[in-house]
Amino acid sequence: MSTEESLLLIPGPIVVSEAVKAAQSIQSLSHTSPEFIAIFQGALKNLRKLFKSSNPKDQPVVISASGTLGWDITASNLVSAGDNVLVLSTGFFSDSFAEALRVYDVNVDVLTAPLGDVNSIESIEQQLKKKKYAAITITHVDTSTAVVQDIQSISAAVHKTSPETLVVVDGVCSVAVEDIEFTKWGLDYVLTASQKAIGVPSGLSIGFLSERAVTKAMNREKQSTFFASLKRWIPILQNYEAGKPSYFATPAIQLVNALNVSLEEILAGGLEQRFSKNKQVSRDFKGKLVNELGLRLVSVKDDVAASGLTAVYFPEGIKGSDLLPSIYKKGVVLAGGIHSQIKNDYFRIGHMGVSALDDNLGHIAKAYDAIKTSLAELGYSK
Amino acid sequence: MSTEESLLLIPGPIVVSEAVKAAQSIQSLSHTSPEFIAIFQGALKNLRKLFKSSNPKDQPVVISASGTLGWDITASNLVSAGDNVLVLSTGFFSDSFAEALRVYDVNVDVLTAPLGDVNSIESIEQQLKKKKYAAITITHVDTSTAVVQDIQSISAAVHKTSPETLVVVDGVCSVAVEDIEFTKWGLDYVLTASQKAIGVPSGLSIGFLSERAVTKAMNREKQSTFFASLKRWIPILQNYEAGKPSYFATPAIQLVNALNVSLEEILAGGLEQRFSKNKQVSRDFKGKLVNELGLRLVSVKDDVAASGLTAVYFPEGIKGSDLLPSIYKKGVVLAGGIHSQIKNDYFRIGHMGVSALDDNLGHIAKAYDAIKTSLAELGYSK
Repeated sequence: MSTEESLLLIPGPIVVSEAVKAAQSIQSLSHTSPEFIAIFQGALKNLRKLFKSSNPKDQPVVISASGTLGWDITASNLVSAGDNVLVLSTGFFSDSFAEALRVYDVNVDVLTAPLGDVNSIESIEQQLKKKKYAAITITHVDTSTAVVQDIQSISAAVHKTSPETLVVVDGVCSVAVEDIEFTKWGLDYVLTASQKAIGVPSGLSIGFLSERAVTKAMNREKQSTFFASLKRWIPILQNYEAGKPSYFATPAIQLVNALNVSLEEILAGGLEQRFSKNKQVSRDFKGKLVNELGLRLVSVKDDVAASGLTAVYFPEGIKGSDLLPSIYKKGVVLAGGIHSQIKNDYFRIGHMGVSALDDNLGHIAKAYDAIKTSLAELGYSK
Repeated sequence: MSTEESLLLIPGPIVVSEAVKAAQSIQSLSHTSPEFIAIFQGALKNLRKLFKSSNPKDQPVVISASGTLGWDITASNLVSAGDNVLVLSTGFFSDSFAEALRVYDVNVDVLTAPLGDVNSIESIEQQLKKKKYAAITITHVDTSTAVVQDIQSISAAVHKTSPETLVVVDGVCSVAVEDIEFTKWGLDYVLTASQKAIGVPSGLSIGFLSERAVTKAMNREKQSTFFASLKRWIPILQNYEAGKPSYFATPAIQLVNALNVSLEEILAGGLEQRFSKNKQVSRDFKGKLVNELGLRLVSVKDDVAASGLTAVYFPEGIKGSDLLPSIYKKGVVLAGGIHSQIKNDYFRIGHMGVSALDDNLGHIAKAYDAIKTSLAELGYSK
């Protein structure tokens, strides 16, 4: 089934580079071979750089799974049944994280930000003073609203107000597109997935743990899952990074190779350059949607708008069931809404990875043109 | 890093076909696009054929994870804390399954077969009469010993002696190389992984559930994990198979495509032809090791020897730390031992997928020659 004609611009999976595609199609290797150990070692070391980690006791985590496993990892390793966890919600994925935590009998309080906005630092500090929280979860960019939380400021507030509370960040739609200074900002666990800005096919749960998160996981006596147990995985990951064969469950050989290749590409391009280019592309694109087409963004102001995707309302009189198929016919695949309150009222465009960074591909321009032309065909004018 | 020179003949990951390699390197697709839905639908329908399922209410399961997740799926969906489960053990992987179950506070009784042999039907029936077991787990082929259990006879015995006991089969090293008639034999859950005889890169947890296992999972009120919850996955998988978009966690797009392509290849070749060819290759290879080289197999008799791999003792005076590197230098990657009792005394050769089925590749002959020549170089003679 050929899909070369369609341009994939949803908020993940994203278009992968040619080098990553090639890395995906290597022949299988033994998971304990020197060849694969070197690849896995490279990927783990490169993750330290991506997360700007400055503490060698921080721990990168790569497990064969969907990004969703990161929620189970949080619930089953970093907190315990009966613990209080504060969930900051900026949309569907924040709420789903809360749901995952509740499965593990964690007491969850959800602090919901106004639609399209972030939680205020004051409201977070106020809530943290009410009871003892084992962890706070922050969805860095909620893919349902394209809102980006200021995790640096939130983490600082948590460390000041409730220093024992672990700072857990869902970075599924932020890692490799928004800046993250893991150690400096005092984060404890950032979880993400391979198929978003990291630019690898879906299939890897990727994470980064602080020294105190590692200690907590390793000292935990009662495990609540087998496959998601950090106590089982951490020694394996440490062995791989040290260049030694190790076995718990067979890693996804080709995906880890693709991850290593993609991280090499990301790091070679320079992180600061990448983040500022992503921000610029996002601002330009959003600016055109708002100013040239007169559309309204879900994110209520510039400084809460994510760089990796745009969530934008359909204009009055235009139905998504007309607009999205029309755009699709022009060869561009965008995503519908997923936030329960406004599910049918908006759509989403992903602009991560090569699609945002390589102007020569013309991806963002093509998406904009498809939106503009389709709107005009449906009789819309600003 | 090129590895074209090395021939991978471990008991998984195995060498994948050229078509599967190509299927791995497609550009990413939207997980809810018609293109991907058709691919996932194809893979799920083809799994029904591979498992020779005759009940439409049987349920194929494909989740982005290592095969290991199948143990968590069993423990968290098909049995509950406090339930008794009988684990039949023919080696390391059977015992690991028991360990995974214990994490979920299941009461596990392990019935251990003599090393290199299977559990007798009498011993199983006797044990089943002692208490009420919610499930029995059988490792169809334990990759640590290359012993194959007669799951058809065991399942018949369970249905006769303890009909309410769910029959759970770890088919990681058996599915697509040993015959399995899922519905006819009364199996309730067979779990496997993508990187063994199914011939796909590692990264997919694959399973097959009976109607009563589906009912049990769907009626379960308390979930004990989020990511491994069948109650969450089954409706999603049913939607994909019905051609409808659905979302819980993003599937591994490229791996599911590779799975579909590999299953098409497997089914096109004919299942009966495949299983008999696998058996013949295995018998010939084992016969030559025993008769021509005078080696001793870990499996104690012909009818308990698995078709997909061979476990064979080092001959007296030959150390694995000499033999395996010597074989590796000849371009063949084999595996060491993993069974705790005999870890350093034996090695393992995988012969699954194209390596066993396509004589033109000459893989098995190359492995045999490398073993024979290396033994001679180390001064061994029969």
